[in-house]
Amino acid sequence: MKAVIAYGDGYSVCDNCLTPFRLDYIKKPPIADFHVDLAAWLGMAEARVVPGARRGFQAVASTYVEKGDPVLVTALSHYTEFIAVEAAGGVAYEVPADETHQITADAAAGKIEEVIRSTGKTPKLLFVGHADYQFGNIHDVKGVARAAHEYDIPVLCNGAYTVGVMPVDGKDLGVDFIVGSGHKSMAAPAPSGVLAATAERAEEVFRTTEAHGDVSGRSFGIKEVEMMGCTLMGVTLIGMMASFPHVRERVRRWDGELENAAIVLDALLSIEGTEVLSEFPRRHTLTRIDTTGSFDRVAKTHKKRGFFLSSALRKRGITGVIPGSTRVWKYNTYGMTRKQAVYTAEAFTAIAEENELALR
Amino acid sequence: MKAVIAYGDGYSVCDNCLTPFRLDYIKKPPIADFHVDLAAWLGMAEARVVPGARRGFQAVASTYVEKGDPVLVTALSHYTEFIAVEAAGGVAYEVPADETHQITADAAAGKIEEVIRSTGKTPKLLFVGHADYQFGNIHDVKGVARAAHEYDIPVLCNGAYTVGVMPVDGKDLGVDFIVGSGHKSMAAPAPSGVLAATAERAEEVFRTTEAHGDVSGRSFGIKEVEMMGCTLMGVTLIGMMASFPHVRERVRRWDGELENAAIVLDALLSIEGTEVLSEFPRRHTLTRIDTTGSFDRVAKTHKKRGFFLSSALRKRGITGVIPGSTRVWKYNTYGMTRKQAVYTAEAFTAIAEENELALR
Repeated sequence: MKAVIAYGDGYSVCDNCLTPFRLDYIKKPPIADFHVDLAAWLGMAEARVVPGARRGFQAVASTYVEKGDPVLVTALSHYTEFIAVEAAGGVAYEVPADETHQITADAAAGKIEEVIRSTGKTPKLLFVGHADYQFGNIHDVKGVARAAHEYDIPVLCNGAYTVGVMPVDGKDLGVDFIVGSGHKSMAAPAPSGVLAATAERAEEVFRTTEAHGDVSGRSFGIKEVEMMGCTLMGVTLIGMMASFPHVRERVRRWDGELENAAIVLDALLSIEGTEVLSEFPRRHTLTRIDTTGSFDRVAKTHKKRGFFLSSALRKRGITGVIPGSTRVWKYNTYGMTRKQAVYTAEAFTAIAEENELALR
Repeated sequence: MKAVIAYGDGYSVCDNCLTPFRLDYIKKPPIADFHVDLAAWLGMAEARVVPGARRGFQAVASTYVEKGDPVLVTALSHYTEFIAVEAAGGVAYEVPADETHQITADAAAGKIEEVIRSTGKTPKLLFVGHADYQFGNIHDVKGVARAAHEYDIPVLCNGAYTVGVMPVDGKDLGVDFIVGSGHKSMAAPAPSGVLAATAERAEEVFRTTEAHGDVSGRSFGIKEVEMMGCTLMGVTLIGMMASFPHVRERVRRWDGELENAAIVLDALLSIEGTEVLSEFPRRHTLTRIDTTGSFDRVAKTHKKRGFFLSSALRKRGITGVIPGSTRVWKYNTYGMTRKQAVYTAEAFTAIAEENELALR
């Protein structure tokens, strides 16, 4: 917040933009260093900051996709991937998830073949979520990338739910691009995000302008076309930078986060009739559960209806669960202390007992 | 700054995004009202907030421009207009400025004809600056728009240097789009901006997604394609909103700003050898002058070289002029009090006298 106040002014960082006039070259504040650190941290060659993950998707789609081109996303893709494809004039096709809600290399290869058969064109790009927003499942990005690369299809890994909370190594994943969200998982103000690329792909997506003025004779230096000339500026960028040391440190504590997730989920699963819909055991703190056979049975007769659950949680100081949800819902334990996780776990079983649900 | 602190958190406004799940429908904080007010204030039917004026250019170019299409900008256009055209795959052609650095309706009509002859295609879009960044001249946007409309070419008025400092009425200008910059002229944190449109053009550029999941069967509601689903969120949006009452009020004081500009320019022009390159009398506070025949003559022999001017100004508590500039340079008196304008004017003539330049 101190950084946000110091750089709240509109031209706070631009005042320091000297030759060659690009934000990612500014040395003071250390924006240039931040870019180098971000890329290295993600195991990629180059990184740029953008106004939200979706603007990273847009930059990549705009580079590779022309009117009518097929592009692969997945059946668990976030809607912003579809929109980036649509804005570029492309048509999105989904790689299906299997019955455990996983995106596999085989499914990707199968869908590539299917799209080639049906459209006569090889997909220009493939988006795959590292962890998806519906189940928080960790997908086989490495296998999917390998399958796509056999067809020379560049692969963008959507790390909105992983970059900034768990270790992400683009080199190990073998992807061409990694996109992260500043405001979702990097403790930054909105809108902010990061787009990282391999050296080869950086030349394509971070290409500099070739425009020139036919009358004035002007040309525009090393401004990057898909960045619209300037990467993320001002308060949002500085917020990302201020949070980065903390973010880098917390990523190393991911195992502890998964332990907390397990403590809460174990308690929920101890309530008869509750099922977990996410992969199990959990590899992410975002979890989708089905309490139709437990809490929703209570909701049918409780005078507060479906709101009894969020109400009982709130009484215990626990907020964040969508009020009224007692069937299929999701929650995220990320950032809890161990004490809070244990307390939340005990709260769920206590609420179950209060409402005469059996524990198994 | 209070608003910035209160909404610095990444999901600060998104937490209030309920059905139909679009930022510009959020009632608390009053984001929906702000959108209505913004549009009305600009004399347009619809407005959206975007992460910088350039993202407004991008949205419009992406809507109308396909690969190889000609697009008109002007010889005084900001580079971000060229980049928006280039990102959409178009080719930019400049409407020339006349010898007084004005963009005229005749020049626009002439260039349209020339582009049609040379490319066989009617330009898909025309960008025209309300005030340009080089001279701060106010251009005949109304005449240019009328000329373009005879060819059914939509017109985007770049108001980065006018929206938020002087009155701008899109209806009077007769343009299809007005773009303003939050961080340049609306006292907002970066990156922020506004894209406003007529009712007819709003349907095109703010069209909602038609994407759907071929496997999952998902569709994505009323998310707008060129907005990438969400308009400007969080700290930057709230900064714009917090400044808006002040911005609306200061626009009404534009005449006083022009008087201050005249006080400073009159003093500069009283120094023999100084010429104004901007239109005269000034209709904007941003002014380009040529002091090759005055201050630069001093620089030739002064021990501080060209830095003597910024140094002498700094001694008097005046900053903001690019250090070392003594030939062709620009300055902006916007936001000065009358007292500051008079003080600055006197400082320029005093510095001239100290350095033995004649006053005329």
